[in-house]
Amino acid sequence: MTPEEFREYGHRLIDWIIDYRQQVATLPVAAAVQPGEIAAMLPEHPPSTPDGFDALIADLDRVVVPGLTHWQHPSFFAYFPANAGYPSILAELVSAGLGVQGMSWVTSPAVTEVEQRMMDWMVDLLALPEGFRSSSTEGGGVIHGSASEATLASVLAARWRATAGQVNVDGDTSRLVAYATSQAHSSIEKGLRIAGIGTDRLRLVAHDANFAMRPDALAEAIAADRAAGLEPFWVCATRGSTSSMAFDPLPEIGRIARAEGVWLHVDAAMAGIAALVPEHRWVNDGLELADSYCTNPHKWMGIAFDYDLFYTADRRALLGALSILPEYLRSAAAESGSALDYRDWQVPLGRRFRALKLWFTLRTDGIAPTQAMIRRQVSLTAELAGWVAADERFEIVAPAPLNLLCLRLRAGDTATEQLISDANGSGEVLFTRTVLDGGVALRFSIGGATTEREHVLAGWELLQRVAAPAPAGPALGSDAAS
Amino acid sequence: MTPEEFREYGHRLIDWIIDYRQQVATLPVAAAVQPGEIAAMLPEHPPSTPDGFDALIADLDRVVVPGLTHWQHPSFFAYFPANAGYPSILAELVSAGLGVQGMSWVTSPAVTEVEQRMMDWMVDLLALPEGFRSSSTEGGGVIHGSASEATLASVLAARWRATAGQVNVDGDTSRLVAYATSQAHSSIEKGLRIAGIGTDRLRLVAHDANFAMRPDALAEAIAADRAAGLEPFWVCATRGSTSSMAFDPLPEIGRIARAEGVWLHVDAAMAGIAALVPEHRWVNDGLELADSYCTNPHKWMGIAFDYDLFYTADRRALLGALSILPEYLRSAAAESGSALDYRDWQVPLGRRFRALKLWFTLRTDGIAPTQAMIRRQVSLTAELAGWVAADERFEIVAPAPLNLLCLRLRAGDTATEQLISDANGSGEVLFTRTVLDGGVALRFSIGGATTEREHVLAGWELLQRVAAPAPAGPALGSDAAS
Repeated sequence: MTPEEFREYGHRLIDWIIDYRQQVATLPVAAAVQPGEIAAMLPEHPPSTPDGFDALIADLDRVVVPGLTHWQHPSFFAYFPANAGYPSILAELVSAGLGVQGMSWVTSPAVTEVEQRMMDWMVDLLALPEGFRSSSTEGGGVIHGSASEATLASVLAARWRATAGQVNVDGDTSRLVAYATSQAHSSIEKGLRIAGIGTDRLRLVAHDANFAMRPDALAEAIAADRAAGLEPFWVCATRGSTSSMAFDPLPEIGRIARAEGVWLHVDAAMAGIAALVPEHRWVNDGLELADSYCTNPHKWMGIAFDYDLFYTADRRALLGALSILPEYLRSAAAESGSALDYRDWQVPLGRRFRALKLWFTLRTDGIAPTQAMIRRQVSLTAELAGWVAADERFEIVAPAPLNLLCLRLRAGDTATEQLISDANGSGEVLFTRTVLDGGVALRFSIGGATTEREHVLAGWELLQRVAAPAPAGPALGSDAAS
Repeated sequence: MTPEEFREYGHRLIDWIIDYRQQVATLPVAAAVQPGEIAAMLPEHPPSTPDGFDALIADLDRVVVPGLTHWQHPSFFAYFPANAGYPSILAELVSAGLGVQGMSWVTSPAVTEVEQRMMDWMVDLLALPEGFRSSSTEGGGVIHGSASEATLASVLAARWRATAGQVNVDGDTSRLVAYATSQAHSSIEKGLRIAGIGTDRLRLVAHDANFAMRPDALAEAIAADRAAGLEPFWVCATRGSTSSMAFDPLPEIGRIARAEGVWLHVDAAMAGIAALVPEHRWVNDGLELADSYCTNPHKWMGIAFDYDLFYTADRRALLGALSILPEYLRSAAAESGSALDYRDWQVPLGRRFRALKLWFTLRTDGIAPTQAMIRRQVSLTAELAGWVAADERFEIVAPAPLNLLCLRLRAGDTATEQLISDANGSGEVLFTRTVLDGGVALRFSIGGATTEREHVLAGWELLQRVAAPAPAGPALGSDAAS
């Protein structure tokens, strides 16, 4: 591809993206395809000669777009949002265009130093503890791809600290015990498993009626493990769980962790960004007790995936866990201690110039549009909760302090499954399901950058339409009682 | 940012990237900045109001570019190349613009199915074993970000298989032993460490004079560990080492691994792509004996980072190691077994639409330009070796079967360190150093998409210029003898 072709095609694709974004609301939210259908539209073997850019654009429209579930659709109420705002798309373009590596400071100093600044800017914007600043001597922050990676890094740092580094030599994790509730994200079990902490040393601490960890149960579990000769080493407090947006009580958990010398990781992947809005800063209450923390601007802040902010108050443990210095990566800057080598803050070696995505966004749009969206969507969620409460066929099954409402039909699990299936089958919305204390629930997640009141109202009216009619009398004998 | 602003800025940035690429050869290869210098040019705190796009572009030129080490520079001879070709840059743009998630098939079927096709296309193009095809019932391939992640996934799959899955429950890795040479990439030790295999269960198998693993030493090490009651579970054969492009003898290692029931991982991060050229397909000799394999199109194939192709012949072990299915991720498609959920093939949950980068490249440029570049650069490396051999001040310290030549001054380590430092200090080139069997060497890596004979020749002439004059007599008493 010549530079002139790149110019022509690049301009066309910028326009194509605008067209896609402007049409996305008219498309079915989820792809209506069967497994194998998209693959069947692509040749089984690579082309023997290139077939050119026009054919490629045509196939984007013909093959790719119909095979997508549209995360930028205003009626995408599934999972959590993955807003990818225009400034961050441009930054991803520039990052790829520069094609530089940020694995070490010396491999492109600007990649590391813009990232340090962005991590510190976010300390300001989210009012995070000062100990997370890169300018602090003990802590610091780094961009990871996902909260899963941040969780793993946190576990590894904690494992290193608990064993005084010995784990790097003997790999012995046999006495280490970790704690979380059943509501913690699946990446918690996955990260622990990878680090050699199997399910028989992951304690699922009891939660209360609001799906939040019970600090007394945590304290008891830790005491029991100590009594058994085991070593409690890591606890995850979720601030905004995936199933129901539950908030583990942070100051209480933090005090226990501090007293017991257990590493406290705070997973605020979705909800942490709410702290951009001063009245929602409660999401970070108690965070000064955390050893590590993560939140994902790629969810509610419009920074195109992949973008997780991972902070630790104990840089030494993180580096102890992850740094290895082969001869071909030595540099004077790193050895002098005057520069950070972010490769030692993560699992992979290579790093893209992801800091640009935050930099572009904060310098063009700033945070005001995001703050307005968060306020609007928290308020919309409360309004939705009112509508749901007023329809006797439905019940709300968990508190909804931010932008996720979990609801179900009183008629029971089967009816709720059918509700989700029928609503999604319309193509007009997309919801995902979860199970809360054994009962199926529909997650109504309101987080899209273009999601307005009209979309939430239409989604609710659709649910009302497809829901089974209200039972004539009490639902005795239905599986609601199960 | 409005759509019209996105259009205007997007077009400008496409043009800016072309300008950058066209000017990059005139810039110093490495940034000439001190730690902290770039950060000092950025405000300590985020802007209270956005300052707009023109200021941002100006800062790209003023702050960012001077702080970069230019991996796309034709005289970048450091590390390994990281070619980011135009088609893949456009694909990264589209991926960010679509903003869809490929964590599960159902979250955007096209992301998964285009990826499956691309992985299978690469089986064709690299002539990989049929057992790596996604259409095979036992194997398959997936795009990872980096070889580090592929290595970790491989170790985890092997760990699962060696313990019949029990490691997910008890985390017990205490009997597992891994094997590699001292020439294996640092990510090998890192991946093992993460998975709970410390350095005391990583055997550094002896290598021969060419820095390739000695199969007899591997067999002996395995036997000794078995005799000690340990369980050999994973061996890494490097095909094209980072230090010197050494090739561990694959069929021999494969036969031992097969006979011993040890998982064989083949790390061909750099050199595997050479198999695009039929006469270089020897790089994959014996690969049919591997349980897993990886190579990085983001190095020599022009697919913008991050792009690692990870294949396994044992999908069941990989999924056993990495899959977890919480309620909020269940889908009918996955449970029917008719669709792949790539989140279970990797550590992170979320996934970008990276398959587009290969698709765009293969459909616009095809592989012919890459094949021509590989042939040219292998030939240039041989020519360079001739020049070096003809200068008595220099010696070649390792075989150079592809595009990396390791050389040193006969005058010894200090002189060689000075050589590297002086050459890099010119700003005209960038080399990195390594240590081979205790001696410092300069790595002359010829892999840039725009690197031609003139650049290699200029680089060599620069080395000749800055090298110390030839000693008057034999270098007796110099540290060359050490």
